[in-house]
Amino acid sequence: MTEGQVIALSGGVGGAKLVLGLSHVLPSDRLVVVTNTCDDFDHYGLRVCPDTDTVIYTLAGLADAVQGWGRMGETWSFMSALQALGGEDWFNLGDGDLALHVLRSSRLREGASLTQVIREVSRNLNIDVAILPMCDQNVSTTVETTDGHLPFQQYFVREKCAPIVTGFSFDGIEKAVPNSDLVLALGENPSAIVLAPSNPYVSIDPILNVPGLRAMLRDNKAPVIAVSPIIGGEAVKGPAAKMMAELGSEVSALEVARHYQGLIDALIIDQQDASLATDIARLGIEVIVSQTVMNSLQDRIDLADVTVGLANRLMGE
Amino acid sequence: MTEGQVIALSGGVGGAKLVLGLSHVLPSDRLVVVTNTCDDFDHYGLRVCPDTDTVIYTLAGLADAVQGWGRMGETWSFMSALQALGGEDWFNLGDGDLALHVLRSSRLREGASLTQVIREVSRNLNIDVAILPMCDQNVSTTVETTDGHLPFQQYFVREKCAPIVTGFSFDGIEKAVPNSDLVLALGENPSAIVLAPSNPYVSIDPILNVPGLRAMLRDNKAPVIAVSPIIGGEAVKGPAAKMMAELGSEVSALEVARHYQGLIDALIIDQQDASLATDIARLGIEVIVSQTVMNSLQDRIDLADVTVGLANRLMGE
Repeated sequence: MTEGQVIALSGGVGGAKLVLGLSHVLPSDRLVVVTNTCDDFDHYGLRVCPDTDTVIYTLAGLADAVQGWGRMGETWSFMSALQALGGEDWFNLGDGDLALHVLRSSRLREGASLTQVIREVSRNLNIDVAILPMCDQNVSTTVETTDGHLPFQQYFVREKCAPIVTGFSFDGIEKAVPNSDLVLALGENPSAIVLAPSNPYVSIDPILNVPGLRAMLRDNKAPVIAVSPIIGGEAVKGPAAKMMAELGSEVSALEVARHYQGLIDALIIDQQDASLATDIARLGIEVIVSQTVMNSLQDRIDLADVTVGLANRLMGE
Repeated sequence: MTEGQVIALSGGVGGAKLVLGLSHVLPSDRLVVVTNTCDDFDHYGLRVCPDTDTVIYTLAGLADAVQGWGRMGETWSFMSALQALGGEDWFNLGDGDLALHVLRSSRLREGASLTQVIREVSRNLNIDVAILPMCDQNVSTTVETTDGHLPFQQYFVREKCAPIVTGFSFDGIEKAVPNSDLVLALGENPSAIVLAPSNPYVSIDPILNVPGLRAMLRDNKAPVIAVSPIIGGEAVKGPAAKMMAELGSEVSALEVARHYQGLIDALIIDQQDASLATDIARLGIEVIVSQTVMNSLQDRIDLADVTVGLANRLMGE
């Protein structure tokens, strides 16, 4: 068993589930979480970072267990008052959640980097796992649809993912610089690079598109292991399956393998997709069949165990 | 009885009580409220306007009846989460109250004036009385104390008015321009200019110090009527009496009269201060003795009636 770090790339809810599992099976100094910031946006002058915050709340034990994002026991006086004031109410900001947005926005205006703010927040919430936004520059996903180009949160929240997707762009990505703490971590012989079961198009791809990062991950000695977010032809949560279909692809873990081909060494797929193993293996990708549906905390821990076990085996080869 | 407008200059809680009374005894188009903005400040990047907001919440029927400021039925999840994040917690921002601050800050950043924002907010809250911030420029009171110079909210909230006051400055006031809607209202033969029972030093004086405004009020044909915020040698609420004593003055309605001498035509004092009437009259100020403690809504309405009745009489002379 190696003692290097596990670097997990994550979007929101699904990714955060595996990250939580990993935090249970690894000492905290062996886990580094890289979060997608392409969903981040400014709303009423507040910088909102949905994926990073979901990881924060999950690791802090503050996440709403039912919806997977936001804070448990949240109150909604702000939204209710905002509506009465005639404000835009398509994006829900919980009262407690607002503290993070207000504090972050204030620190960013003072000149702190997002990485620094997330480090401060993590320390105050007693999170000892490193959470690294993929970059400190502002980048934003635009979803290209048959109804026109939509900023991600408008597509995702306001339009409820209804428009038919034709493509994506990650605005500002060409000027993004990989998080320097991530670059350092990649240089210190990590044990594994894990692509959490997040949306390949809008959660993982933005991270991979930070200039230089895909090559750094691919060329690292650590195995790159993805966990398929597509199970039995469906996404557990979110629009990944819908997007896949609209982009003209087969909706399956095989398509996930094709999507990540050239980058990943192994793909963990669900038991119900076992029949796809041969086709995936033909792509030169090692397949592990496991239970990947994470309903309970134990499911998260079990999948994390499988992932770390696979990493150790691949590193030993 | 004249049909002109009553222009009321107000700070927070005490002033808002009389303003509420005036809103009951006057048709809405006959009342204009001018609010002190020298207490306004930026907190976590949000523009907070305590006096203006107290007037807004009071006229909208949303004010907390017990404390007089803030919203009734307020929740505090934001502050609780902010504390957990290590944020500064000396200034309380309620969850519902935050909506106003966030919306306003966003509109101001978009280039709207404070006057415009308050107009929009008033419309959405069905307030049909004009609420005019004294000016649209950022101005801020500094309280000079034996412990040094303190921004107003730090003196008022963080230090709970404990430091001994030696003076005040209204930073930025020299560049302030009187609210243009107020200038218009002053030109349309108002019936009265009322100095509400607010703190003379930090609520009313900032308004009077907006360049040109004191002369405009003094030279207007309408009578200028003040209601003493000092009753029986004490302030009903806030540090007015404490400030008066620390500045070496007698703490009394007579001192209020002296403070406003040269500007006001009449002063309404409380029954318990009736013995001061002769001395006040010697200053060339007409004195009305009334009940000025406003515990109930009826008290507010009664004092407003006295004020408007006095204005009508003085206009008739």
